[in-house]
Amino acid sequence: MTQARTNAFYAQSGGVTAVINASACGVIETARQHTDRIGTVYAGRNGILGALAEDLIDTSLESPEAIAALRSTPSGAFGSCRYKLKSLEKNRREYERLIEVFKAHGIGYFFYNGGGDSADTCFKVSQLSQSMGYPLQAIHVPKTIDNDLPITDCCPGFGSVAKYVALSTLEASLDVRSMAATSTKVFVIEVMGRHAGWIAAAGGLVEDHGIPVVILFPEIEFDEAKFLARVDAMVKQHGYCSVVVSEGAHHPDGTFLAEQGTRDAFGHAQLGGAAPVVANMIKTALGHKFHWAVADYLQRAARHVASATDVRQAYELGARAVELALEGRNSVMPTIDRISDVPYEYRIGVATLDTVANVEKMMPRDFISEDGFGITDKCRRYLAPLIEGEDYPAYRNGLPVYVTLKNQAVAKKLPAFALA
Amino acid sequence: MTQARTNAFYAQSGGVTAVINASACGVIETARQHTDRIGTVYAGRNGILGALAEDLIDTSLESPEAIAALRSTPSGAFGSCRYKLKSLEKNRREYERLIEVFKAHGIGYFFYNGGGDSADTCFKVSQLSQSMGYPLQAIHVPKTIDNDLPITDCCPGFGSVAKYVALSTLEASLDVRSMAATSTKVFVIEVMGRHAGWIAAAGGLVEDHGIPVVILFPEIEFDEAKFLARVDAMVKQHGYCSVVVSEGAHHPDGTFLAEQGTRDAFGHAQLGGAAPVVANMIKTALGHKFHWAVADYLQRAARHVASATDVRQAYELGARAVELALEGRNSVMPTIDRISDVPYEYRIGVATLDTVANVEKMMPRDFISEDGFGITDKCRRYLAPLIEGEDYPAYRNGLPVYVTLKNQAVAKKLPAFALA
Repeated sequence: MTQARTNAFYAQSGGVTAVINASACGVIETARQHTDRIGTVYAGRNGILGALAEDLIDTSLESPEAIAALRSTPSGAFGSCRYKLKSLEKNRREYERLIEVFKAHGIGYFFYNGGGDSADTCFKVSQLSQSMGYPLQAIHVPKTIDNDLPITDCCPGFGSVAKYVALSTLEASLDVRSMAATSTKVFVIEVMGRHAGWIAAAGGLVEDHGIPVVILFPEIEFDEAKFLARVDAMVKQHGYCSVVVSEGAHHPDGTFLAEQGTRDAFGHAQLGGAAPVVANMIKTALGHKFHWAVADYLQRAARHVASATDVRQAYELGARAVELALEGRNSVMPTIDRISDVPYEYRIGVATLDTVANVEKMMPRDFISEDGFGITDKCRRYLAPLIEGEDYPAYRNGLPVYVTLKNQAVAKKLPAFALA
Repeated sequence: MTQARTNAFYAQSGGVTAVINASACGVIETARQHTDRIGTVYAGRNGILGALAEDLIDTSLESPEAIAALRSTPSGAFGSCRYKLKSLEKNRREYERLIEVFKAHGIGYFFYNGGGDSADTCFKVSQLSQSMGYPLQAIHVPKTIDNDLPITDCCPGFGSVAKYVALSTLEASLDVRSMAATSTKVFVIEVMGRHAGWIAAAGGLVEDHGIPVVILFPEIEFDEAKFLARVDAMVKQHGYCSVVVSEGAHHPDGTFLAEQGTRDAFGHAQLGGAAPVVANMIKTALGHKFHWAVADYLQRAARHVASATDVRQAYELGARAVELALEGRNSVMPTIDRISDVPYEYRIGVATLDTVANVEKMMPRDFISEDGFGITDKCRRYLAPLIEGEDYPAYRNGLPVYVTLKNQAVAKKLPAFALA
């Protein structure tokens, strides 16, 4: 247990979100309140790569205003990376390098902000530091739009994507409803979530607004005939309908809808996503005019319409991570523990990383309606509070004021290190 | 000149927008302030089709609150349609039918809310009513996200799309900047605008935020080698870049980028848009990992982040249309006349429909940078005030409160009418 004053290291990992910087803000602001115990907070430039390359950012050079502005800035302010450390056995060298860098810069606190893979890395770094006798407290700060971390009720980043998807589906559906008499009758929107349908499920929230919607989940094997019959029935009843398709929607043989063997004029493999495939299927079978959208990064970067619940939780989990470190905890992750749906109440709990690493939380089957094309009331009760509240960024000249930090590098002390 | 009290007819035409209902709100609220001169405002269900079919909506049955809520509701509250009346010579029958329906329901004011085609229809209806001796004042209310109407400085609907595109490009670009070290280096977003690059131009506003962006306009013939060289240079200089591609971007022979002969496994014509084509081109030539988005309806329905300038102007033009009618004007359209860029000042002017109908306003060449991939300062000065200001809708349970009207039909008085 670290009691002396020591520096901290913070890094962002994997796909960034609308609120991962809110967690960074929570970490840094809370650390700054404890200068007796925490010296400088260093950030890894481009995530854990910054630690491996000893490319550290000195966050103490950022003004309180700049750090506060992180709360309303999407993306990863220090850069993130897609780089998964191999197992300890296969690449012990990289783990040891991390410890060396931490040692060289007097770092006793390691805050790693990411999803399942980074929880695993965080866990291993913690184990290795113990076996090497280096005093390090490794705390994982949860983040993933995929909402697939175990134990925590939800993951920061997800609520804002869910709000974006529900909102976009609502707005586009009203548009289609206006046009359906003579023009577009089906609108297809493709959303993220290769393994789990949490994000696609959010599209189901528009049913409360009277919008007919059909959802294609990765959890449900695609049945073209059944799907087309459902769309046909919706259009016959309402005059129009919207389809929310997960990028992970797939055929019974496991191939994604997006991979249907499309080739361009030069024979290159298909270019499009699932949305155009589904839209074309509807056009061919039912003859309806369609429009389709692929939200892609827009959904996870949409800080302008972030969920206030999500922003608050992202901040709180970052802040709590620092408190856990100060309380002497190691190899843990703060969690959202839901107390009640209505009124929405939760407390911040804590999970040990051995129970988090390498466990994926899938969407329960009873969140998906029996026919597989919609969400249940249970799912609705789960999702509703997560999109609650607006937390608008400031605007200047018609666009949000998002901060770009100075990100000044710390002088290196070690020899260069080549990645495996 | 109508001096007696008479009813009014209002219809929405063509693709709907985030603010066309704000114009409807302006028309109806202003008409309700002049009950001495204007009786009931009838709306056409699904635009002009409602007039032809004598399917009129009685807007007097909607509460003041519901009408006020139109100001912050996207889409077309009464339904719109894509239906262009043929020339007077070719289908005089339809024009005469309109007059018959107006006569049957005591309608002396015709407010038509749309783009170039509807301005033309409005003009012809006005001419025919005069030649038939039926007292009708036809006023066109401008609306088009394409921003291509002449005389008026801008068109309601455009400013909000421009804001959405600039904002989305900004947010997604920050995301890519975070990921570029190990993952995505190029983000491609496809936007609307088949004939003119006004919407794509809005993506250029993010350059003020330090974002490297390459724009593909419909006005500039696509040159693959030059484009790839530009993207390559941007990525080399900044580590990443964003591409905003207009759906109207095309090769020198006129074929759209989206139509590059892609076939699916069944030989169906291509499914995707321009964005995946451009992204794949970059991947093939430069090897960069990419992400792409197609905003489609999301951009024109995005009332949640509408431009306050746009909402205000949409309302004002609707209101002014009614005043023009009360002033005895016929065959005119209220316009936005810009007085100055900074501070932004404008007044509401008026144009006669003979000068509006069938004239498309293209983007001036000096709004596009010399190399064809960006916007000029002149364009920036033009666009900046149009995206200025936020006008948030109210929210309930995490989603905007958008109104759905009762849209109760008026009893028919005429025999049915078959469309040609």
